[in-house]
Amino acid sequence: MRLSEESRSLALETGVQLHAEGSCLVRLGNTHVLCSASLEDRVPEWMRGRGKGWITSEYGMLPRATHTRSAREAAKGRQQGRTVEIQRLIGRSLRQAVDLAALGEVQLTLDCDVVNADGGTRCASITGAWVALALALKARGLERALINQVAAVSVGILEGCPGLRQGLILDLEYEEDHRAAVDCNLVASLPTGGASELSVVEFQSTGEGRSFSRTEATALLDLGLKGCAALMEAQRKAVALG
Amino acid sequence: MRLSEESRSLALETGVQLHAEGSCLVRLGNTHVLCSASLEDRVPEWMRGRGKGWITSEYGMLPRATHTRSAREAAKGRQQGRTVEIQRLIGRSLRQAVDLAALGEVQLTLDCDVVNADGGTRCASITGAWVALALALKARGLERALINQVAAVSVGILEGCPGLRQGLILDLEYEEDHRAAVDCNLVASLPTGGASELSVVEFQSTGEGRSFSRTEATALLDLGLKGCAALMEAQRKAVALG
Amino acid sequence: MRLSEESRSLALETGVQLHAEGSCLVRLGNTHVLCSASLEDRVPEWMRGRGKGWITSEYGMLPRATHTRSAREAAKGRQQGRTVEIQRLIGRSLRQAVDLAALGEVQLTLDCDVVNADGGTRCASITGAWVALALALKARGLERALINQVAAVSVGILEGCPGLRQGLILDLEYEEDHRAAVDCNLVASLPTGGASELSVVEFQSTGEGRSFSRTEATALLDLGLKGCAALMEAQRKAVALG
Amino acid sequence: MRLSEESRSLALETGVQLHAEGSCLVRLGNTHVLCSASLEDRVPEWMRGRGKGWITSEYGMLPRATHTRSAREAAKGRQQGRTVEIQRLIGRSLRQAVDLAALGEVQLTLDCDVVNADGGTRCASITGAWVALALALKARGLERALINQVAAVSVGILEGCPGLRQGLILDLEYEEDHRAAVDCNLVASLPTGGASELSVVEFQSTGEGRSFSRTEATALLDLGLKGCAALMEAQRKAVALG
Amino acid sequence: MRLSEESRSLALETGVQLHAEGSCLVRLGNTHVLCSASLEDRVPEWMRGRGKGWITSEYGMLPRATHTRSAREAAKGRQQGRTVEIQRLIGRSLRQAVDLAALGEVQLTLDCDVVNADGGTRCASITGAWVALALALKARGLERALINQVAAVSVGILEGCPGLRQGLILDLEYEEDHRAAVDCNLVASLPTGGASELSVVEFQSTGEGRSFSRTEATALLDLGLKGCAALMEAQRKAVALG
Amino acid sequence: MRLSEESRSLALETGVQLHAEGSCLVRLGNTHVLCSASLEDRVPEWMRGRGKGWITSEYGMLPRATHTRSAREAAKGRQQGRTVEIQRLIGRSLRQAVDLAALGEVQLTLDCDVVNADGGTRCASITGAWVALALALKARGLERALINQVAAVSVGILEGCPGLRQGLILDLEYEEDHRAAVDCNLVASLPTGGASELSVVEFQSTGEGRSFSRTEATALLDLGLKGCAALMEAQRKAVALG
Repeated sequence: MRLSEESRSLALETGVQLHAEGSCLVRLGNTHVLCSASLEDRVPEWMRGRGKGWITSEYGMLPRATHTRSAREAAKGRQQGRTVEIQRLIGRSLRQAVDLAALGEVQLTLDCDVVNADGGTRCASITGAWVALALALKARGLERALINQVAAVSVGILEGCPGLRQGLILDLEYEEDHRAAVDCNLVASLPTGGASELSVVEFQSTGEGRSFSRTEATALLDLGLKGCAALMEAQRKAVALG
Repeated sequence: MRLSEESRSLALETGVQLHAEGSCLVRLGNTHVLCSASLEDRVPEWMRGRGKGWITSEYGMLPRATHTRSAREAAKGRQQGRTVEIQRLIGRSLRQAVDLAALGEVQLTLDCDVVNADGGTRCASITGAWVALALALKARGLERALINQVAAVSVGILEGCPGLRQGLILDLEYEEDHRAAVDCNLVASLPTGGASELSVVEFQSTGEGRSFSRTEATALLDLGLKGCAALMEAQRKAVALG
Repeated sequence: MRLSEESRSLALETGVQLHAEGSCLVRLGNTHVLCSASLEDRVPEWMRGRGKGWITSEYGMLPRATHTRSAREAAKGRQQGRTVEIQRLIGRSLRQAVDLAALGEVQLTLDCDVVNADGGTRCASITGAWVALALALKARGLERALINQVAAVSVGILEGCPGLRQGLILDLEYEEDHRAAVDCNLVASLPTGGASELSVVEFQSTGEGRSFSRTEATALLDLGLKGCAALMEAQRKAVALG
Repeated sequence: MRLSEESRSLALETGVQLHAEGSCLVRLGNTHVLCSASLEDRVPEWMRGRGKGWITSEYGMLPRATHTRSAREAAKGRQQGRTVEIQRLIGRSLRQAVDLAALGEVQLTLDCDVVNADGGTRCASITGAWVALALALKARGLERALINQVAAVSVGILEGCPGLRQGLILDLEYEEDHRAAVDCNLVASLPTGGASELSVVEFQSTGEGRSFSRTEATALLDLGLKGCAALMEAQRKAVALG
Repeated sequence: MRLSEESRSLALETGVQLHAEGSCLVRLGNTHVLCSASLEDRVPEWMRGRGKGWITSEYGMLPRATHTRSAREAAKGRQQGRTVEIQRLIGRSLRQAVDLAALGEVQLTLDCDVVNADGGTRCASITGAWVALALALKARGLERALINQVAAVSVGILEGCPGLRQGLILDLEYEEDHRAAVDCNLVASLPTGGASELSVVEFQSTGEGRSFSRTEATALLDLGLKGCAALMEAQRKAVALG
Repeated sequence: MRLSEESRSLALETGVQLHAEGSCLVRLGNTHVLCSASLEDRVPEWMRGRGKGWITSEYGMLPRATHTRSAREAAKGRQQGRTVEIQRLIGRSLRQAVDLAALGEVQLTLDCDVVNADGGTRCASITGAWVALALALKARGLERALINQVAAVSVGILEGCPGLRQGLILDLEYEEDHRAAVDCNLVASLPTGGASELSVVEFQSTGEGRSFSRTEATALLDLGLKGCAALMEAQRKAVALG
């Protein structure tokens, strides 16, 4: 088991979906997610005529992304609650990356499909979807609409691990996540314009086995911000904004 | 518009669903939620034979709880993502209230149905569901399994309101929630055993219009904890543990 | 057990759903139904351009309205046959209350949600929905479209009860309904214009344990008409047409 | 247009579904329904171990049974409210034909599929389903369980037709049904044991365009009973109980 | 068991669905299918404005068409894979019968509902649907659009039957189909204009128990073409093109 | 446009899904499919107790596998007819590869998810699924159950291409498939035991724009068999049976 305050190794391979305006295969340790950004020149009906764009997301798992095969949601005829919750989070997070008014009446759909799952799939999806989104905007000459960089990481408290400072751990693998007493996801943003400090887009912290103190909450937040800063460097290289 | 660091007036009426083991109508300003706790002597299949209990929740809105009528989910044939997300949060939060091993193989289902919606329905549901849960456990002589008191409140940042300290506002009405730049839900717990400090069960903070700083995050958390402490007093009176 | 030719005590509380154009909580003994009338300035597509209005209804039960918890229809993803049958009856009955041409292109949706069920929920729904409907029409200055008062009551034959004349019983509780040999629902109407006799909107009579004679059928009808007359007095007070 | 107190011509052809324990093609004027009775040696789970049988029904329309093609319910993925209401009525009515205890743990499913629709399909279904049911019981040596003959007919009030006594009309065609002010379905039964009077299994009367008086209700009931008596003669011939 | 290279006896009864533009009850041995053609003066949205027509098909089985009762697809809420596959085949095959441009913006829906199933229902459906289609086009004066005659037959290899040349068998009954090592469906067409050779519209050959050689494939194809030629004679008589 | 009787370049990358018993990413030109084989020690209920195994398949497309984004089937809540048809074909084809009795009560599920679609996805899925299946059997010491090698290829007739002999073309790209007059899929098998001739598992040939002759049918079959032989060489290398 990796015990540290660093995230797992990250690889971002672009151009993997040939038809997509932008795509990226994220490999974060053994968590692999295929992200694509599809750009269409129309927005949902409830947004028409406002001159603004929209960003939405859909998330899925290949049936054998997991240790044992999971039922295919298309075959079951409905998406699980967990799926819906995750795709709402991805959509909400990535809307912070873009000036929707600068997009014009354009919709971007971010599809995140998990090929291999080993913890942190929603955070890896956000990190990869930002790359796909940035590439799609470039491909269509819409870079000016990209106002923030967005990345996400998980962070938690693992009890009974002497090697961890206050039990804090960044970027949990499946086994670690399973045993964690407190489990958080942090989505952070950074203006694309230049040097600046990261701020918080979304911070979700949940006591799984126990509740946690105000002090622990802030320590988790701080570690997550540090983790996101590192992921953002890799993102910039992948889209050659670096 | 109320601009303050106090929550709206809270009334907790018990016994409103005649057949339920425990029930409570929460009125938090113009947000009214009917909460019931149903106790069954069997657990879901995946939990059988472990000697432990389970707590789950379902959430719904009456079609005319809202300004304009919303489609009935039973008629549409599927629950919205928002509904599923909320009922997962309620279930997760209330499981922190109970020692599941002390319950035995018993399932408690917490139904929260919104009669009138004016912001903060998920938090009001958690606060009311705890009362229904506590009454159901009393009615069946299972008080020993109730180890924590759990309540929830929303908190946010409203910009352009000179009356607010740093824009902070507790327990947002629908209109306030709609205009908020940052929007949080805090679920807190307190051991039933005696005097102690509140701790965090779940803290969900989302930048709606903008991201927010680490300093703002901790100020929001602090205001939420203060708000939950006040709600817990009312809960104790309602179940006469006070 | 009440054995009589009178209905249970009736209370009609109005204004319970804050956003609805009209609303009413019916309490008929231990049967409690929340009724609301939602008025929208558009009709279903198949009715457009005819200058006429439309009235429809949806019916539901809170999961713990019943002795043991029932599955939530929204969660199961489909409405039961019983639900569909009841809401079709409510809609059909209340359309008799209104001159649809005098409404203009307006749709009224009558939502009836059962909070506590102890027999007769469909009849209580109709009685309460009429109050909500009348209030909604008043609130929008459309009283002229309200041409009939409509109320409903159940009536049946209970065998082996010496206190009952020919076994006849009005407004059956759940236990009585369960044991009844013949089970009827009567919807009656009375012109709003002035003194007149009640007439029949719908009479549904079903032999549950045995078939019944022509004589029994007419006795059931007569008792039901008498019962509806009493309910209509309470309705008039509630909407202050009295 | 036929204006009379007699039903349309009735033909009952048996044995049309080769695999069914009993089957009957009913032709009532231009309304044609294919009825089959399927007998299985098991009852629904909730009835097991009681030593009693069960009777249920399913109803459908071929897409081109109607003037213009209707959507196939299997393709739409859900049965309409009208379908569910009708199949509940058929099942309830035919359960009155049988002594369920004398059946043993046997389930009979009555499928009624409309080939051509010209009004009165639910009544024709009941009349034909009784024939299929009787044949299936004979085929399996279970005649003793058949205690009542059951048939059904529609009856209504048509205004503005001088040829009709009080506007009364039996067995309405589609066009008549469409114009009727009052619309009823009567299901009647007669003990198989010998001469006796018909009694009522179900009487559903609905004011479509106007409400109706107590006097009209009884006249409708009387005409319906007379109509059912004639249909029962044809049924007896078809199953050779004559 | 019939062992031969001839198909079962074929009867084509027309006009069985009174409202349909064309209809035909096919009886091929104990396989009976009710086929109707419904003509509407509009095409699906994706085809509008091109001046061309469209042909589609829906297939179903009455629940008791089979040895034991099958669940009704409308009640289950979804069509089986087999159903979808068959109706796609029927639609595709019959589109070869018609010059869609000569139709104008007209849609023909071919409904095929199996009354009795004894093998070969998809082929019997195609053969009967062509008759219904031809009659509908005649009824509307669109014969010029009918450019090909289309019929279908099953063919297979049955092992261990000394009476069969190379095991080849035409038009398999259910029991034969069940035991077949190789199972094929052949759809053939013939120009309506005059004498000509049959050609292949669709040839689907599947090794059920074993794979098969190139030589067997061509023998199967030849036998199927011979079988279709005979069926086409009967079709021509039924529509009086003969 | 490639005009030839050779298939596109084929690459088979194994081990791409970390948790699967066997997996393979097929790249056939710009058609890329991720195939996995999941082995479970239980069979579907209807097969239990027979001591035999079962093989089934599910097929899906990532939303942006296509030129424009397709709706996600999990979000729509049902699989399309095309999807169901394809996964039935894959399952049927791969069951020919295995001696189900030698498997024991084991189920293999073959998931084929299309990452990039450029024609021939069902054939590429079969070719790749065989590799995943063979690897899974090896990983569990069940090689003896693998009795046949199975591969598939598309073949068609393209009119107006002077470079093509009789218009014949192997392994059609999307654009070619779209323009083809005749469109076939051939699944072939070869015993694993040693040198032998390919035989046919399934041959589906469809006239899209026109029907075709017996001579064309056999030429298509011959070209397809030649194409499958080449694909099988690549399969053997990938699983090192070579």
